Amino acid sequence: MKKPIAIQGIKGSFHHEVAQLYFNDNADVIECMSFDGTVESLLKGDTDFSIMALENSIAGSIIPNYALIDNHNLNIVGEYYLDIQHNLLALQGETMASIREVHSHPMALLQCKVFFKDFPHIKLVEAKDTADVAKQISEQKIKGIAAIASQKAAKLYGLDILAKSIQTIKHNETRFVIVERENNDLERKGLNKASLKFELDHKRGSLATILNVMSDCKLNLTKIQSLPKIDSPWKYAFFVDVTFEDYKDYEKAHSIMQLMAQNFKVLGEYKNARL
Amino acid sequence: MKKPIAIQGIKGSFHHEVAQLYFNDNADVIECMSFDGTVESLLKGDTDFSIMALENSIAGSIIPNYALIDNHNLNIVGEYYLDIQHNLLALQGETMASIREVHSHPMALLQCKVFFKDFPHIKLVEAKDTADVAKQISEQKIKGIAAIASQKAAKLYGLDILAKSIQTIKHNETRFVIVERENNDLERKGLNKASLKFELDHKRGSLATILNVMSDCKLNLTKIQSLPKIDSPWKYAFFVDVTFEDYKDYEKAHSIMQLMAQNFKVLGEYKNARL
Repeated sequence: MKKPIAIQGIKGSFHHEVAQLYFNDNADVIECMSFDGTVESLLKGDTDFSIMALENSIAGSIIPNYALIDNHNLNIVGEYYLDIQHNLLALQGETMASIREVHSHPMALLQCKVFFKDFPHIKLVEAKDTADVAKQISEQKIKGIAAIASQKAAKLYGLDILAKSIQTIKHNETRFVIVERENNDLERKGLNKASLKFELDHKRGSLATILNVMSDCKLNLTKIQSLPKIDSPWKYAFFVDVTFEDYKDYEKAHSIMQLMAQNFKVLGEYKNARL
Repeated sequence: MKKPIAIQGIKGSFHHEVAQLYFNDNADVIECMSFDGTVESLLKGDTDFSIMALENSIAGSIIPNYALIDNHNLNIVGEYYLDIQHNLLALQGETMASIREVHSHPMALLQCKVFFKDFPHIKLVEAKDTADVAKQISEQKIKGIAAIASQKAAKLYGLDILAKSIQTIKHNETRFVIVERENNDLERKGLNKASLKFELDHKRGSLATILNVMSDCKLNLTKIQSLPKIDSPWKYAFFVDVTFEDYKDYEKAHSIMQLMAQNFKVLGEYKNARL
């Protein structure tokens, strides 16, 4: 059965690619122009899943997306790691000299900044979505403007690739998560990773104590990130990912941590994509 | 004595503001167009200090700046917390209706995106520096274009403030650090905070053990961030900030952690700005 999936961006975007790879091409996507838009469509029931980039090997965690998941009590049900390669796309016949402007998402522009240093005649303009620019160039036959997007987008919209892999840091891996509206009663089969959030007072050793519990219960830590609570200067929130072999070990750790930390919350339990 | 300080951006930028506040107006600044530029000027000896934004209450850690400090073995010698308020600046007589484009740094554009939803006629264009746009508008009397910058920049360049505090999240605190070329023999007086980096194998409990040492040595953790090592999938790097009351406690923890973790490195020892 095809399930409607909210993606940030349009067909040909990296989020679209993840939707296809995660759901084995069995994905009806609904194009949204922002992460907030994907969450809105999820909450209204227009879609069953939303795909969200959550962290990047260059930029670190995408904190605003953590906040969206947390604030709307969404449930992470899966993850996917994608190696992001940016390419410069334009109409057939264009050259680096004929391009006057590159329109793309600010993050893509940032990641390809160094490449454009050699082309000072090219102006960088912010756009809402990487693939959308490619689509517009293609449909409206816009000359002199290039897009930064994937090879898939080039193929989908029939554009030439003027330059391949133009991002500064060549290995640019992004972790995406698949989220649902809320924590359903999931089948407990094959779950071996969890994303947790909790708060601790700024008291010496409080984090060490929690990590000891995790370690004693045989959980492996794959990510940890502290975030100061803006309105409570001496309190910290922690986003933590753990992997485990036996769900019972995780359950035991969960019940202890819940007593020790404040506002303990499971953002999702799912299958580790890195096994 | 006035010391030359490299700042990202020009006079009127937030980095300039931090330079003035940290050095009590006793600061000769050298304007650089990128963070890489500030490091270059530091390494060449053109400047003695560089100011760098390092983390933000909205976006989290600025990982590329951590990488710059780490890769060039720079030394953090101080920190400063600034509440970033974005304002829309233009020539006198302009109105929201007469503005066609806003030019600013991609981060500033991102942080003010929601405000511009109500003004769909305004095009957002990426620029290198927030204050530089203000300067150009002022010097070249450019009509129809607005800048996103601080109140200080408005004053410095004689521009009108069309809208105040236009960033989506009103409390927008950024932590800046002051860095030097290398770890000099500092005076040990008043040091009560350190930034550390170390690596651990993906082994259960390895981080908990390190945190136990910190806790036993009376160190307080104020920040922790894991970062997967791209080329060593099962190894993690950690950026950690600790505070302490007695430097001897820190020295003790330091000597133990150095033995337990791999590639243990002190990014800087300095005075906590939050006391």
